[in-house]
Amino acid sequence: MTMVLVRDAVGQILRSARTEQGRTLRDVARDARVSLGYLSEVERGQKEASSELLSAICSALGLTLSGVFSDVSEELKSREGLTLTVVDAA
Amino acid sequence: MTMVLVRDAVGQILRSARTEQGRTLRDVARDARVSLGYLSEVERGQKEASSELLSAICSALGLTLSGVFSDVSEELKSREGLTLTVVDAA
Repeated sequence: MTMVLVRDAVGQILRSARTEQGRTLRDVARDARVSLGYLSEVERGQKEASSELLSAICSALGLTLSGVFSDVSEELKSREGLTLTVVDAA
Repeated sequence: MTMVLVRDAVGQILRSARTEQGRTLRDVARDARVSLGYLSEVERGQKEASSELLSAICSALGLTLSGVFSDVSEELKSREGLTLTVVDAA
């Protein structure tokens, strides 16, 4: 069973928001004062973002933390549903 | 201005869930296979929980990640409101 991971959902939501705004990793990383590599790893779910840097990234994207985590919750919910389906089929 | 931090909100939600269930740190830490000190620090917002251990802690509490992050989003929203109020009063 694939474990549903919060950092994957966070990364997906942040990447979606950035690309919908037509912005580059470099642009958002500069505004958030994080390295481009750090932001890229967070977006790909390869690194846990610290609360402080997550706050900075959300600010750079003009998003509230509450809004991002509402979306994260929805994303997790859809993945939990997929996990349950796989378990039922086994 | 006090920064709103995700780990504070996560810790508060997890601690509320545990105490509402009348369970001890020791009990939940054992079920989640994390150390008591780790769980205690996460609940107090002093440590960022990794996605893997957060998943284990939620399982030990019988909670879905999506449900926990829905509550986290609400908690963040109320704190963001407080922050705005403080800014307005300054």
